[in-house]
Amino acid sequence: MIYFDHAATSFPKPKEVGEAMLEAVNEYGANPGRGGHFLSKKAGKIIEETREKLMDFFSAPSANHVWFYQNATMALNQAILGFPFEEGQHVVTTAFEHNSVLRPLNRLVEEKRIDVTYVEPDENGLITTEAIRMVVTPHTRMIAVSHASNVTGALIDLKAISDIAKQVNAVLLVDASQTAGTIPISMEEQGIDLLALAGHKSMLGPQGTAVLISKQDYGLKPLITGGTGSHSELPEQPLQWPERYEAGTLNTPGIAGLSKGIDEINEVGIESIYKHEQELMRSCLEGLKRLEGISFYGPTDLTKRLAVLSFRLEQIGSHELAIILDEHYKIGVRAGLHCAPRTHHSLATIDTGLVRVSFGPYNTKEEVETFVQAIEEIVTAFQ
Amino acid sequence: MIYFDHAATSFPKPKEVGEAMLEAVNEYGANPGRGGHFLSKKAGKIIEETREKLMDFFSAPSANHVWFYQNATMALNQAILGFPFEEGQHVVTTAFEHNSVLRPLNRLVEEKRIDVTYVEPDENGLITTEAIRMVVTPHTRMIAVSHASNVTGALIDLKAISDIAKQVNAVLLVDASQTAGTIPISMEEQGIDLLALAGHKSMLGPQGTAVLISKQDYGLKPLITGGTGSHSELPEQPLQWPERYEAGTLNTPGIAGLSKGIDEINEVGIESIYKHEQELMRSCLEGLKRLEGISFYGPTDLTKRLAVLSFRLEQIGSHELAIILDEHYKIGVRAGLHCAPRTHHSLATIDTGLVRVSFGPYNTKEEVETFVQAIEEIVTAFQ
Repeated sequence: MIYFDHAATSFPKPKEVGEAMLEAVNEYGANPGRGGHFLSKKAGKIIEETREKLMDFFSAPSANHVWFYQNATMALNQAILGFPFEEGQHVVTTAFEHNSVLRPLNRLVEEKRIDVTYVEPDENGLITTEAIRMVVTPHTRMIAVSHASNVTGALIDLKAISDIAKQVNAVLLVDASQTAGTIPISMEEQGIDLLALAGHKSMLGPQGTAVLISKQDYGLKPLITGGTGSHSELPEQPLQWPERYEAGTLNTPGIAGLSKGIDEINEVGIESIYKHEQELMRSCLEGLKRLEGISFYGPTDLTKRLAVLSFRLEQIGSHELAIILDEHYKIGVRAGLHCAPRTHHSLATIDTGLVRVSFGPYNTKEEVETFVQAIEEIVTAFQ
Repeated sequence: MIYFDHAATSFPKPKEVGEAMLEAVNEYGANPGRGGHFLSKKAGKIIEETREKLMDFFSAPSANHVWFYQNATMALNQAILGFPFEEGQHVVTTAFEHNSVLRPLNRLVEEKRIDVTYVEPDENGLITTEAIRMVVTPHTRMIAVSHASNVTGALIDLKAISDIAKQVNAVLLVDASQTAGTIPISMEEQGIDLLALAGHKSMLGPQGTAVLISKQDYGLKPLITGGTGSHSELPEQPLQWPERYEAGTLNTPGIAGLSKGIDEINEVGIESIYKHEQELMRSCLEGLKRLEGISFYGPTDLTKRLAVLSFRLEQIGSHELAIILDEHYKIGVRAGLHCAPRTHHSLATIDTGLVRVSFGPYNTKEEVETFVQAIEEIVTAFQ
């Protein structure tokens, strides 16, 4: 099996991830909580250590500003639906967002009557700083952007956008699900206010983990309220962080696994992971370019994109191609709309969908060659 | 280590739970999703199988009515905050609820101006059907009850309460976090409309898993919106179940583990688990009764309670006692308010807290004897 679906979830994980999860379940599977017994303290310690690793990894101001969720969708909902918007306020976002940003924003449009502007990419497939600057108004309270499109891999310049946000006193929310773990991110240097990300993609952790990091206190309302282990006497969620934003039992085994994913990235080095994946993408692109009837999407300047490649063949539909790759060649890719309908509208591929190939740190050049050959064979067969 | 904190989370888990999680992470760690590649389909299949097991286990009408969440708090928030309440409508709940019910209800009181009545236990420590019947009004839209108190273990009669709910067209929401896996529950026979439960307590699954099961369509609004893998072109959450209520990537390894927890219960038999835990509680109670200065809380009729025992010593504070048990005797219990402030108000133990001992299927009589002896020694030492 060749796995080219890293943009959905990374696979395989470093073996330490599974081992840490097994250890968590079998050795200290108690409910984390302050002041509990030995096993409970051990579970709490692993969670706090992981919080600290994430703080370091993203240059967050404090470990208590790092909150754990089941998935990036939940983290983004907390950031967007929890934000103290008032009627008539404005959000700038992009055509490249995932439904986990688009749908909560859509809810705010309906329920709180906020205005949302969707910035379209330029002719090079990039969301430019200039395009964002042009739509920001004095009413803009938030700029919500994906660090990279999950369809085309197109990157944006976070620092420049943060500067724009600061000029109008807006908050910069970044969905880094696609980039965290493969491109260095510093909340401090890039001026990111709210950073949401999945733990199970390039962070190499297991599914069931995600994070929202809040640089300061933006007055977010907790979406979920309930047990907090401390301040149990209060009728509402306590003010203190992280408890305020983490009601209920956390996914201790998942967080223990995520911790080992971060270790692996730190050990291998995020720059060399990035370089490796870029090489795979370049060699894949070069191999595929020679074929007839193939269309590529996304920036041609490869330094401005992630190791994600979306394309379409004239000869065969995207879903059919993915099925042949899976069943005949044992190559896993992802076809369709990738939960990003506006991206596909923007690329004029909403009806056809695209085949997305995304690479991970353990993919090899040989796998890319096998893939290119497979596509060649299919193109020939369908000619 | 003797682990008597099963009401917080069960430990140890059946070894198959960790094994299944490891397999999920290492063998098919892809993102579950309809129409994906081989690994993705495998992940999706495990999730659907677990849904079906839960449907059978709780006599739910369909697997699509079973929705996965990170914790029971999230499941309860979805049920309570998502319910289409209108201003002035009424909810009946009890003094025995966990903060995961109390805090969302409190939010609805503030934001939607609903009325909530908190039913107090009778002199035997039980929430009676009669007490609930007395406070139900034509405006009552929901009766939200814990199947058992997480402090005293006091059980309620779900079927009788469901009959009351039906008479006024109210919905019965049951928090079965304490009972699921140790007391048989049938949504069908007991007339439960919404059933929320944790996967990591008596269900023997890992932390990071919980479930909400909806018998019919009560018009719940999804709390979280985002990626659903299907119907990606819609600006809002699709109508179809379970996608409507499960935005974002699920905790595949956790759900694979939960699946094995259910298998273990089915294999051992829920009745024999119940019987075993009851015997431990009886023998613990008998052993402790002989001591001076000990006060017990909860129903004296042991058939009306779970294998949970909360008590207080005159000679020593609850937190101190728990620390001595942990550090000196390596016995894990839980002291404090157990995220259930109204229960402790009702028991007049809000200032002192209680020490809670809760038993699981793998605890032994010898462990109970060791525990009783430890308490004896402590009582003697502090006399």
